[in-house]
Parts: sequence; structure tokens; C-alpha cells
Amino acid sequence: MRLDRTAIDALESRRRVALINSIIGLRPVVLVATADAGGRSNLAVMNSLMHVGARPPLLGLLFRPDTVERHTLENIRATGAYTVNHVHGAIVDAAHQTSARYARDVSEFDAVGLTADWRDGFEAPFVAEARVSLALRLCEEQNIRSNGTHLVIGELCSLHCPDDAITDAGSFDPASAGSLAVAGLDTYYHGGPVARLAYARADVPPRRIDTASLSTD
Amino acid sequence: MRLDRTAIDALESRRRVALINSIIGLRPVVLVATADAGGRSNLAVMNSLMHVGARPPLLGLLFRPDTVERHTLENIRATGAYTVNHVHGAIVDAAHQTSARYARDVSEFDAVGLTADWRDGFEAPFVAEARVSLALRLCEEQNIRSNGTHLVIGELCSLHCPDDAITDAGSFDPASAGSLAVAGLDTYYHGGPVARLAYARADVPPRRIDTASLSTD
Repeated sequence: MRLDRTAIDALESRRRVALINSIIGLRPVVLVATADAGGRSNLAVMNSLMHVGARPPLLGLLFRPDTVERHTLENIRATGAYTVNHVHGAIVDAAHQTSARYARDVSEFDAVGLTADWRDGFEAPFVAEARVSLALRLCEEQNIRSNGTHLVIGELCSLHCPDDAITDAGSFDPASAGSLAVAGLDTYYHGGPVARLAYARADVPPRRIDTASLSTD
Repeated sequence: MRLDRTAIDALESRRRVALINSIIGLRPVVLVATADAGGRSNLAVMNSLMHVGARPPLLGLLFRPDTVERHTLENIRATGAYTVNHVHGAIVDAAHQTSARYARDVSEFDAVGLTADWRDGFEAPFVAEARVSLALRLCEEQNIRSNGTHLVIGELCSLHCPDDAITDAGSFDPASAGSLAVAGLDTYYHGGPVARLAYARADVPPRRIDTASLSTD
């Protein structure tokens, strides 16, 4: 299939949104938990988490102002604090359900049956049922002129994950932790490791590293 | 495992980079192809592709100026044109190898054994061996103050993918296309579908949609 821009723009609206949202392939799916200044919790499933840098450790989230994520963005601006919690198989239905438009006085935690865990005195709750959680503090917001979205960059304050999800090389293995990915807005995937490759050098052919230490979950 | 910021910063440098790069979980891995003003091609594997919006169709790429991706960024600024090509199992070793530091006068296409396909008169080549390719034109660059990275946003000009990778709902299925994901810098994953969920409504419990139409590849 080859679609030029005219053909893309001519797609029926829902099909265009479904196609363009999924065409980049698998991406992280996380629950972003926040609280407003009064301590009322909010929870939103998001698929725009990105790595920004390792030193300092920075992650980004892209927000569309016209969706249910709006409360999350308002809370982050108000308190500066948020947590990012990986979605795994046992909580994927509840996670997806947070995308419904609940009234502002309803906490999505209660509505979907997940538990707000106020940990370490942090101003935003963690998702108790998540295996991997990250606490972040807002450090920069960029407005994307092209379409009015907002890129929120946060600095990592703490990282919580199962010991056995860390490989010998020190990296995180999403398969071992059961962390899911999503394509587009509604289809969730589990990842199985295919190959680990050695650091590439111009004068050496590509070499695969034994992946026996990787989970084959 | 619980690491606070002090413990994260105290990790040995390579382990910190490995952990922070992988902690968001699975993300897209693509080959970004460009040409300089003289038509010399360049190819770089990247793991920072992001969805920015569907109308207009916008994708983002985050660049660190101090890596081999630098030539890619210079070419995009010079010509405005680039292609994004999904990595599948048969080209993953070659794709990874493009991350080696080749001299500027070496095209990574030649060095790693992939084929530059000059298609549709577009100013940047496509990767002939890729099954899914996107042609993009630069429309915005944002500088991230927190760490000096550059977010490049491009508008989709054309989309090339196998017919059978498009679901009945019009979305792209990365499993069916064999498109891989990556965690961190060196570990590649294949995604298998777990669940597709219906559009969430506050007054309806989460509902799974039959995924028989999804590939179980």
C-alpha cells in the first residue's frame, strides 16, 4: 500500500487517526498518576512516554490539551510531581478504562479499581498494582507550534522495579517485567526478545550477544 | 529494587545509560535515511520516533547532537527531507551496525549492505529492504533546554506498507509487518498482540474486542 499525503488526508477521520497513531509501531504504555493541589488523585493511560536523556535522567510526555489527559497536565503544572507506572497484563483493562471521560470529582483510581499508593512522601500517588514505577518532577514544558501539543519533560526522582527485570548489563528488560507496549490507541502487545547486539564499531561486523540471560517470557 | 536519585546518579556510567535508556520499555526502532545537498546518502538507526499528531500527520525524532545521528540532523536541516523505515528481523543486524562511527564520506547503506531506493523523486532515499517506510518533511525544530537535545518534527508526505499489515479498523499492526521494537540501545523485541480494547466510556466496563483479525505471528 502506498498512500501519498492527499490519500492520507482523504481517509475517513477515525481510520486516519487509527492509522497515523499506530504507524510508528510499538510504543510504551503507562499510567500517569497525579494529584491536584488539594490532594485529589487522577490517573490517565498515556502512550507518549519518551526518553530524553540519561544524565540527568529525563523523560518526556506529549499532551494534547483537548483530551482527558488535560487534568493530568493541569496537576503536573500545579504540583510539579507525577508518577509513570508501566501497564502489565493484569491491569491492562483497568488502564485502558482510565481513558474514559470521568467527571473531575471522580478519581480514575476508584472508577477503574486501581489503588493509589502514597509512597515516600511524594506529592503524586503511585499505582500500587504496577510492577515498574517512576517518580518524576517537572523541569521543562515546550509548546509544539505545529499542532498545539505540549511536551512535558521531567527529571527522574526515583525508580521502582523488580530486581529480576534488570539484566546483567544493567538494563531493564520489559519482557521480564511483563510491561506491555501499545500500537495506536487500543491494541496492546507483549514483547519477546529477538536479539541483543554488541556495541557497533565501523571495523567489526555486527555481533549478537548471547541472550540466554534475557527472559523468554 | 528502589533507586532514589542519589542511587541513580551513583550508578557506573554505562549501567546508568543502559538503565535509563531502557526504563520506558519498548519503543519503535527505525532507520532514518537522508541525503546531503550533494545527494550523498546517510543512514542511522534511531529509537526516538514519536507520534505528535494525526491531523496534520506529524512525527517527531529526538536528536543528541554529539552522536553519529549528527549527520542525519545536518542533512534534514539542509534538505528538509527524510525517510523513516521500520526495522524487521532480517535487517536488524545491519540496522544496528549503522550506529558505528563511519567516516563522513562513507554511506552507511554501503557499509552495512542495505539498498538506497530513490523513490517518487523524493530528496531522501528509502531503505529498499524495509517493509514499512514513511517520507517526511521537516516542519519544526525545538531545542530542549534541559539537556541540549533537538526535537525534529516532520509532516508525513507518504506512507508505504504491506496491505495485510492494516487491520479491519484501519490501524497498522506491527506484529503482522514484523516491525521490531527496542528497549534501550541494543536489545530488540518482537511484539505479539495481547488485547484490543473498545473505546472507553465512563458508564461502561472495559470490553475486549475479538482479536482474531490480529496477527498472532
